[in-house]
Amino acid sequence: MTDFDPGTLPYCSFTAPDVDGPRVGVGIGEGVLDLTELAPTLVPDHALLFAEGSLDRFLAAGPDAWAAVRAALLEHVRGAPAARPVAEVDLRLPFAVADYVDFYASRHHATNVGRIFRPDGDPLTPNWDHLPIGYHGRAGTVVVSGTPVHRPSGQLRSADGSIGFGPSARLDVEAEVGFVVGAGSTLGRPVGVEAFAEHVFGVCVVNDWSARDIQAWEYVPLGPFLGKSFATSVSPWIVPWAALADAHVDPPEPKVDLQEYLRPPGPGLDLELTIAINGSVVSHPPFATMAWTPAQMLAHLTVNGASLRPGDLFASGTVSGPETGQLGSLLELTWNGTRPLALDDGTERGFLADGDTVTISAAARTRDGRLLPLGEVEGHVV
Amino acid sequence: MTDFDPGTLPYCSFTAPDVDGPRVGVGIGEGVLDLTELAPTLVPDHALLFAEGSLDRFLAAGPDAWAAVRAALLEHVRGAPAARPVAEVDLRLPFAVADYVDFYASRHHATNVGRIFRPDGDPLTPNWDHLPIGYHGRAGTVVVSGTPVHRPSGQLRSADGSIGFGPSARLDVEAEVGFVVGAGSTLGRPVGVEAFAEHVFGVCVVNDWSARDIQAWEYVPLGPFLGKSFATSVSPWIVPWAALADAHVDPPEPKVDLQEYLRPPGPGLDLELTIAINGSVVSHPPFATMAWTPAQMLAHLTVNGASLRPGDLFASGTVSGPETGQLGSLLELTWNGTRPLALDDGTERGFLADGDTVTISAAARTRDGRLLPLGEVEGHVV
Repeated sequence: MTDFDPGTLPYCSFTAPDVDGPRVGVGIGEGVLDLTELAPTLVPDHALLFAEGSLDRFLAAGPDAWAAVRAALLEHVRGAPAARPVAEVDLRLPFAVADYVDFYASRHHATNVGRIFRPDGDPLTPNWDHLPIGYHGRAGTVVVSGTPVHRPSGQLRSADGSIGFGPSARLDVEAEVGFVVGAGSTLGRPVGVEAFAEHVFGVCVVNDWSARDIQAWEYVPLGPFLGKSFATSVSPWIVPWAALADAHVDPPEPKVDLQEYLRPPGPGLDLELTIAINGSVVSHPPFATMAWTPAQMLAHLTVNGASLRPGDLFASGTVSGPETGQLGSLLELTWNGTRPLALDDGTERGFLADGDTVTISAAARTRDGRLLPLGEVEGHVV
Repeated sequence: MTDFDPGTLPYCSFTAPDVDGPRVGVGIGEGVLDLTELAPTLVPDHALLFAEGSLDRFLAAGPDAWAAVRAALLEHVRGAPAARPVAEVDLRLPFAVADYVDFYASRHHATNVGRIFRPDGDPLTPNWDHLPIGYHGRAGTVVVSGTPVHRPSGQLRSADGSIGFGPSARLDVEAEVGFVVGAGSTLGRPVGVEAFAEHVFGVCVVNDWSARDIQAWEYVPLGPFLGKSFATSVSPWIVPWAALADAHVDPPEPKVDLQEYLRPPGPGLDLELTIAINGSVVSHPPFATMAWTPAQMLAHLTVNGASLRPGDLFASGTVSGPETGQLGSLLELTWNGTRPLALDDGTERGFLADGDTVTISAAARTRDGRLLPLGEVEGHVV
């Protein structure tokens, strides 16, 4: 259970047995405020945005509405209002995902993957330092934390080169941070790094489940497809970008001179992720080590004139730091299954076993050294 | 202007100065019937499906509703009802695109691209004969025919290896056929080749605009991204799958033994595409030569358990035949710009120039040799 700081005020969508229809909720401590119920008195000008019980209308309403509602909530929680225990509600996918893009923004992750999948070549492709590499994923299979994940089947190539079909034997996780677009943009008009906060509403935790054996056979030349599209899990809480101001950090220096549209980079974020398998903590990936900032990702995504819609989700790609205990995937933690990982219950894992539960949580480290929990994403392999 | 056969009965969404809100239309000859107006008397049980003026609800209603409405329309048009001239209405994007997937199903196209982009290796990757390669594209930038296409800017690598930024100098078209999913499916449950017609509502014409220079620099290792995501144009008409029964053909024999989930292949389609630039016809790509059928594409797309939603769109990839006059992209027609193409006005093109208008039309060839027009997709480069 996440214990939210009263300055974080993340949004969710929930149902409960004693209320009609879904509600927009706001997390505080281990409780949730019913914003759909509160809004007509708390933020009467914006109450309709919450009437349908999802974040869709609020996302589209744009930064002035986001700021007004957050200001009213910050004032409201100073009165220590009674909140419903989160444990008593069902948390839903908080918004309709429009397009889903996944980046590849960790230098450590990309280098490790390159070494594993292309051992004879340079681990990083020549474009890696010049642009944040990304690709589109499947929006329709983005599911909320707690949704069971079916082990996918697909074509698999054996060591002898023969092609078979069956369940993936290399089911993996990728610990990522997701960015939720609120205000859309116009086709043909790029969104510059400086306009990031006018478009991006907030942040969630993402587990980009990956079937490494399916992926390895399919991904050349057009990229990952079925190895990723079976499920992507997101945390039910969307933390407002405005709540993370104290966790801004400078990103690492780029290795090459960047094109103008990628400068200045905008802030990085000092987030610490934690990956646990069946309760055993296996890694603490540090988001502050990412080579590309969220503002650079958004600027790149739109520099060709591609438009944004409310509900677009873009994720950072696997967060991996330079140390062994900071890697964001089992592919890296076990070096493609060759160095199994010991769990607290005495079992070992190369990749995920049926029945495993994976939890990825995130916390923001503030300048004064506090850790603010941001929520978690959980999935159970069936 | 497309002259639709009375047995085709494609669907569109339109607005007109003298009617309220958008309407669902049905194409006949060079006219359009107002199905939103007709439905309460013609198909009273299904009238609400058309009330909002888009195809979204009708798509989701599933194959029984599709068959009932088509049967009623086939009967209705025998009475030669008065239709509004298509020239007097504005055709809109007929449905909300959920996820967009693009395949790579033409052996001739994939071979040509391999020769151009990877001249030192095998033109086809080892997986090509075993599975229909595909990737996700950007649903939010799928636009209806007639929408201006902005030449994208992006990172470009010069011949000397230096990286610059600017407008694409290699803007291209890809002539494709798109398949529109109506009825959705359940996460974790593949949709087999035999269930194709229970899920796929119909067919449209697609121009998958491509910036070859942006694509060449970005696409390794995670596939096409900004080189494609700036715009994908679709025809305003969705031709029901049921209208194409007379154009079914056997697909080419596969080169390897296929996995069970890709057998039997289901029908290919004898469609002839036509590409014209500023009115000069430059190619007639033959869809019957595609190595993978639409049912194989759908079975592959879902074999990992990925679910379908109403409005999912999957396109075939560029349609290219074995002959020079059958290539579906300028990349191939001009061999990456090295053999410019002469247009009727005396000018030459390596790739598209600003101001060019590209029109891709499609017609189905029936077993008795008739050509049934299916509509066209047009775009103007600005």
